Amino acid sequence: MQVGLIGLGRMGRNMQDRMRNAGHEVVGFDADHTIADVDSLEDLVARLATPRTLWLMIPAGESTHAVIGQLSTLLQAGDLVIEGGNSRFTDDHAHATLLGARGIGYLDCGVSGGVWGLTEGYGLMVGGSAAEVEQAMPLFDALRPAGAREDGFVHTGDVGTGHYAKMVHNGIEYGLMQAYAEGYELLSAEPSIIDVPSVLRAWSRGTVVRSWLLDLLTEALKKDPQLENLSGYVDDSGEGRWTVEEAIAHAVPVPVIAAALFARFASRQPDSPAMKAVAALRQQFGGHQVRTIEAVKS
Amino acid sequence: MQVGLIGLGRMGRNMQDRMRNAGHEVVGFDADHTIADVDSLEDLVARLATPRTLWLMIPAGESTHAVIGQLSTLLQAGDLVIEGGNSRFTDDHAHATLLGARGIGYLDCGVSGGVWGLTEGYGLMVGGSAAEVEQAMPLFDALRPAGAREDGFVHTGDVGTGHYAKMVHNGIEYGLMQAYAEGYELLSAEPSIIDVPSVLRAWSRGTVVRSWLLDLLTEALKKDPQLENLSGYVDDSGEGRWTVEEAIAHAVPVPVIAAALFARFASRQPDSPAMKAVAALRQQFGGHQVRTIEAVKS
Amino acid sequence: MQVGLIGLGRMGRNMQDRMRNAGHEVVGFDADHTIADVDSLEDLVARLATPRTLWLMIPAGESTHAVIGQLSTLLQAGDLVIEGGNSRFTDDHAHATLLGARGIGYLDCGVSGGVWGLTEGYGLMVGGSAAEVEQAMPLFDALRPAGAREDGFVHTGDVGTGHYAKMVHNGIEYGLMQAYAEGYELLSAEPSIIDVPSVLRAWSRGTVVRSWLLDLLTEALKKDPQLENLSGYVDDSGEGRWTVEEAIAHAVPVPVIAAALFARFASRQPDSPAMKAVAALRQQFGGHQVRTIEAVKS
Amino acid sequence: MQVGLIGLGRMGRNMQDRMRNAGHEVVGFDADHTIADVDSLEDLVARLATPRTLWLMIPAGESTHAVIGQLSTLLQAGDLVIEGGNSRFTDDHAHATLLGARGIGYLDCGVSGGVWGLTEGYGLMVGGSAAEVEQAMPLFDALRPAGAREDGFVHTGDVGTGHYAKMVHNGIEYGLMQAYAEGYELLSAEPSIIDVPSVLRAWSRGTVVRSWLLDLLTEALKKDPQLENLSGYVDDSGEGRWTVEEAIAHAVPVPVIAAALFARFASRQPDSPAMKAVAALRQQFGGHQVRTIEAVKS
Repeated sequence: MQVGLIGLGRMGRNMQDRMRNAGHEVVGFDADHTIADVDSLEDLVARLATPRTLWLMIPAGESTHAVIGQLSTLLQAGDLVIEGGNSRFTDDHAHATLLGARGIGYLDCGVSGGVWGLTEGYGLMVGGSAAEVEQAMPLFDALRPAGAREDGFVHTGDVGTGHYAKMVHNGIEYGLMQAYAEGYELLSAEPSIIDVPSVLRAWSRGTVVRSWLLDLLTEALKKDPQLENLSGYVDDSGEGRWTVEEAIAHAVPVPVIAAALFARFASRQPDSPAMKAVAALRQQFGGHQVRTIEAVKS
Repeated sequence: MQVGLIGLGRMGRNMQDRMRNAGHEVVGFDADHTIADVDSLEDLVARLATPRTLWLMIPAGESTHAVIGQLSTLLQAGDLVIEGGNSRFTDDHAHATLLGARGIGYLDCGVSGGVWGLTEGYGLMVGGSAAEVEQAMPLFDALRPAGAREDGFVHTGDVGTGHYAKMVHNGIEYGLMQAYAEGYELLSAEPSIIDVPSVLRAWSRGTVVRSWLLDLLTEALKKDPQLENLSGYVDDSGEGRWTVEEAIAHAVPVPVIAAALFARFASRQPDSPAMKAVAALRQQFGGHQVRTIEAVKS
Repeated sequence: MQVGLIGLGRMGRNMQDRMRNAGHEVVGFDADHTIADVDSLEDLVARLATPRTLWLMIPAGESTHAVIGQLSTLLQAGDLVIEGGNSRFTDDHAHATLLGARGIGYLDCGVSGGVWGLTEGYGLMVGGSAAEVEQAMPLFDALRPAGAREDGFVHTGDVGTGHYAKMVHNGIEYGLMQAYAEGYELLSAEPSIIDVPSVLRAWSRGTVVRSWLLDLLTEALKKDPQLENLSGYVDDSGEGRWTVEEAIAHAVPVPVIAAALFARFASRQPDSPAMKAVAALRQQFGGHQVRTIEAVKS
Repeated sequence: MQVGLIGLGRMGRNMQDRMRNAGHEVVGFDADHTIADVDSLEDLVARLATPRTLWLMIPAGESTHAVIGQLSTLLQAGDLVIEGGNSRFTDDHAHATLLGARGIGYLDCGVSGGVWGLTEGYGLMVGGSAAEVEQAMPLFDALRPAGAREDGFVHTGDVGTGHYAKMVHNGIEYGLMQAYAEGYELLSAEPSIIDVPSVLRAWSRGTVVRSWLLDLLTEALKKDPQLENLSGYVDDSGEGRWTVEEAIAHAVPVPVIAAALFARFASRQPDSPAMKAVAALRQQFGGHQVRTIEAVKS
């Protein structure tokens, strides 16, 4: 089928390739016109036969709001917009309402798989009406991994639930990564363990902890066995925060996911104000020696 | 090669089968003589040609100490004992010293894979001398998963390191399980998600969180979609505790692994003394209504 | 000075007494007319000389919004509303805007001290304009503890900051309570400690952990040395959640406050869905025995 | 009464003063002879009338073991040794056995109060036999704060329980400090809060979070309102670790105390190996940009 793909970044380009490889006609648009098939959203819409299907793969938040705002005036009743970026699920409701007022359909699609999706396929979680999901199914089938549809695709519920499921997926991902990372650090701290990368590699098959993330860590350690070229500064991209916020809203205890999120926050602090306060307290009551800024710098 | 296998429980029996399937001669001993090939440790030792290889697969702690104590008097110089159970790594040093004083070799082997190891192979982490590891390699090759040896087997270092690596493996496992569990609970708490098991199943392929544990959770939810037949009472088997203790000894922060461990502790408390104290405090300062035991029971 | 006090619950009544004891004229209104001085908000407004000062001490959220909405039509320019309840700081901005449009002033006042405030005074954190703070200072001076004003009162900044500071105060409170509670539980679990309440009491003076909360815990244990009459079911009242949400918004790691919040969530779950999932996983990979619902019930 | 005090460091000297102020005869010994009354342990023992009372106030571990070893040969039946340092409670059992074999008594005394104990008195937790506790009561009465004995002194149980209670006290202390520190950091991160130190100071009276630690933090912020002269590098002195270890041994969940301990561990890491692993994973699956060491240095 024909689809207009908006956003040809790292993820978008790979998805374009995978859909084309499956025989779909993809018309790509990007702010960088040198990699796009059309020069404007207007051109893109004009190039597509009705009813049109548009797939967004751009940064969540302002960019996505702006493009959906424009599409609401360019598209017509019966067209369908699929938001494949990392929108917060609450944004999906606003998007769907805006477009729905003009008869334009809306699906939110959580997409997992990163740069490996091109070859391995993407895990897809889709929210919206059953009819619209059915309409776009050829695209989902092209993007998802080979094998049973149910193993890489799910219709999660109404609008917003696709991104909700993806949000929880990423929250879990934070926890998994931190669990491996803590184990890695502990093995690295124990001098009797000869070669940490070989231990992790030996967990690839047969063990209870085998996983794709573990394979990736093994891969990373092959190239840089002590991760000497990396800094332990870790960004977070929103979904981890939202997961904890939602857990709070539902009174669900999420100590592991929250701990993983806080570890990222802490990783970005050159010096921790909280720990300065703890140091100040120790100095006050115990006369404990503390490190002054000068001492640390010297 | 020939091996004496001590302990024919759930794990031992499967390992016996897998070694026999690979062509090894396994003489099995168990406290339950009806499933054993010999009636006593003495018989077992008598049945094996020298230099003998003995593999222990019995509960860690007292049982293992006792059997190794007996073996130290029954075996002779050149024989080799492999402790494949879940001993604490510190116990391995004692075992090796005891046996080493009589010229008997010792390897500690962390074994992962659970009931699936029979068909999929076991991940193996082995501590001890290179020569003794080499001597037992045919057994390790039989037990580990098919494929490259390095993907399912590692010689981790001197005696104790095999169980050390297995301990960390299990610590990570605690964190991974808790991460999936928290995500599962959050999805279950959100009414807009139609069918939680189908979401987890859709993560099986392509996604960043795909793993063997996730496959197992999907499998469990197939049989009992709301886990109605289970209680949230979760034992812990030692390795999680030891991992946190070792992390403390090495001053390694392990917030995720510790949180997973504490969640298990809490899961076993009918009522939390700590939370009673919090309730008592709220009642004291705020006149907050609290639940008395009677109210809860009624 | 004269003040109209709206809300004569546990907190409001005590504050009414403390202000009256200091010589202020308090006209009290409550939904329960039997304890009120006036029968309606209209009567209350009519009873006060202009410029009026109104103090709200009612449940945050809908009740507070509704009353402020009514006051915005009853009051006139130059009057002043002080929101002393537990409003979220974001609500204060809406309240101030609504009232400000009609020239009515607004202060948000975080009040700490619980049922003890009547005799010991209340800690006060106030947000709003300096002029309006000055205007209401006689009330603040009546309510705050005796001694230096700076030890029990602070003008925190613009509208919303009073409740922001109170929110953080309560977040800290959650952490403090949980810290004492964990220590209490550990002491209780150690059989060699003869009498836990006497240990806590002995910390009242001289120690690093002495505090008012500790005194309250000692008090509670005097009456019920093993807290036998309490259930470990603990509510949370919003501020702990908001603190964690704000910490997330500011990328501030708050592992202790979050852990205390999650402990409360968990305390209210008869059975944990997450721990069921962990139990299910253990059963899958290890054939570990798990507790079925039947086993637990029997 | 007469007492030999071994160890005249920051704590020991203050305690010497406080005991002397109460009329006791204190003979002080220290490795630094310039501040000591005697030149050797032998001299010290010779100077004391029998039955002697010796109070140790030296670093826990090797130093304490060594001195107690020496005392076991210098003292005689009926003498009494009080270990007032921060020994692990398990060490107390060894000490008591060693001395007890020669008829020498032993008490372990947890001492809290830091540098303020000289003027405010020390909170004391004492383990040992009732008779020996009674024998040393004049010293305890001199050291503890004025007021009811029960508010600053407790006989906790047999040998070891005094240090056990002190260990838990310090574990709680870790949690309390971290709770205040997290709140301090969050207030500092919120730009609308004008002056954080004044907020903390305003919590000194009337509020639920008022405590001695809060007073100390207020004091520290008076001198250095933004803690600019401190680094957030925080040592830990053993008790926090032991508390978590004991909690694990008793299967008591201590998420708050453990989080506070881990925050200290993390505060001392120039770069976190665990977070490097998380960064490596993100780079692998997402092509996420990470900070290389070079980028961070430049």
